[in-house]
Amino acid sequence: MLLVNGDRRETLPVSDRGLQYGDGLFETIEISDYQPVFFDRHLKRLKNGCRRLGIPFPAADILAEEAATLCRESSGRAVLKIIITAGSGGRGYRRPEAVETTRILSLHPYPDYPEVFNTRGIHTRICQTSLGINPALAGLKHLNRLEQVLARAEWTDPVIQEGIMLNSAGHVIEGTMTNLFYIKDHAVYTASLEQSGIAGIVRDLIIQIARQHQLKAEELNYTLDQLLTAEEIFVCNSIIGIWPVNQIEQIAFRCGPITQKIQQWLADYKQETLCREQ
Amino acid sequence: MLLVNGDRRETLPVSDRGLQYGDGLFETIEISDYQPVFFDRHLKRLKNGCRRLGIPFPAADILAEEAATLCRESSGRAVLKIIITAGSGGRGYRRPEAVETTRILSLHPYPDYPEVFNTRGIHTRICQTSLGINPALAGLKHLNRLEQVLARAEWTDPVIQEGIMLNSAGHVIEGTMTNLFYIKDHAVYTASLEQSGIAGIVRDLIIQIARQHQLKAEELNYTLDQLLTAEEIFVCNSIIGIWPVNQIEQIAFRCGPITQKIQQWLADYKQETLCREQ
Repeated sequence: MLLVNGDRRETLPVSDRGLQYGDGLFETIEISDYQPVFFDRHLKRLKNGCRRLGIPFPAADILAEEAATLCRESSGRAVLKIIITAGSGGRGYRRPEAVETTRILSLHPYPDYPEVFNTRGIHTRICQTSLGINPALAGLKHLNRLEQVLARAEWTDPVIQEGIMLNSAGHVIEGTMTNLFYIKDHAVYTASLEQSGIAGIVRDLIIQIARQHQLKAEELNYTLDQLLTAEEIFVCNSIIGIWPVNQIEQIAFRCGPITQKIQQWLADYKQETLCREQ
Repeated sequence: MLLVNGDRRETLPVSDRGLQYGDGLFETIEISDYQPVFFDRHLKRLKNGCRRLGIPFPAADILAEEAATLCRESSGRAVLKIIITAGSGGRGYRRPEAVETTRILSLHPYPDYPEVFNTRGIHTRICQTSLGINPALAGLKHLNRLEQVLARAEWTDPVIQEGIMLNSAGHVIEGTMTNLFYIKDHAVYTASLEQSGIAGIVRDLIIQIARQHQLKAEELNYTLDQLLTAEEIFVCNSIIGIWPVNQIEQIAFRCGPITQKIQQWLADYKQETLCREQ
């Protein structure tokens, strides 16, 4: 199910700058019990991304209304994707003077990941494809995602669930579709995203919730060597929640107690948010 | 005028990975006297790009036939754009096992740049937006072009024709829509594109033609300070040919004799190629 600028269409003009240049942004949102989870946070990130890229942000109430329409038509548990582009027009890379934003909302089945990924964790690998360094794009969930596509194409082994990506300066940044955290000496660490990477909604939440529970949470630049000395490691995103990492290449990690605590805090926070918004 | 997988359509499924992730490549080709100029070279680059990205390359004769159809319908002098994407399907960043390539050919008016740009040169500026470093993507004319879009959005002054972009390591790489050369001590230099940038068709040709005329042509990593000591500077692409640079920010450069020689060599080579293919 699809809404393109409010119309039920499955296609987009070829001239759209989203296709021509990847000139846009997207959000991937969990639908739980017919509600878009953390919707305010997704909208806020989208609005901030539009501001940074110079794309006019569509009226939030229109986006909310269209999202609600698709949620009602869903099976209750699903994935909502919102794409915002700079629309058609302009001369080459130069945008038209008055950008007419394109908004695309689409509904997708909730992926059938087994529950053991949450409880017993996942196997990961280190990707050869690196992330570029660009402060102007860092943090944004924009449509230029070839680095992730190439990284994900590096393996087909179904035992491996996620690949860990470094940037061109050799810092560990994130998974191909997740943010990455590690735990050491009763503190939780994740990559600084000032130069590379995507600032995930759940990543932000975990930092916030950890601090509320007096667990030190810090963003930093760190190397693979530092990561391998971690006591616990986990990845997260809006759809999977938190998956412990029990293996990186051949090195095993335990699915430990602090990760489990954070999973519980996140589940509680999500429940509260959903109840409050109902 | 548009051909999408051979059909006369103006739209593309929203699910196409070209839109979703910028998972594809493009070529911008001059049409002169109803012929696509340097078409073999464009196809070769596209094929090489597909190989590097792991996208099946469409049959070259189909692309040639579709290009010929649009050339016949053109006004004789126009621009042909070819976009190749990894098609629809897959699970997130992961492509489907059998990728079904999308091919899009579109016809555009030839831009009305004044002739003085070729003879007397253009004004340029230095862009704040930098190019990322990624050996896996460097050289490719792929669809992830937000860096160029943001760089081009930095100025609106109509006196400025092009912006010069550095990469995150501080090396001068290219213009937002052109490759950049400089001339010093009877030799011509351009950026090495092993880490950033697009390997232009005309850039390759200029290196080849210069060497055929016993003019030293070299690729290197160089800084803005080095560029500013140049005797002559020019930018190039498949549509504009060669434009001398007569100003970078407030610093003037002369539109000099070696640039003019290279312009003439390129014009001669183009004429020969067109005559040979007719």
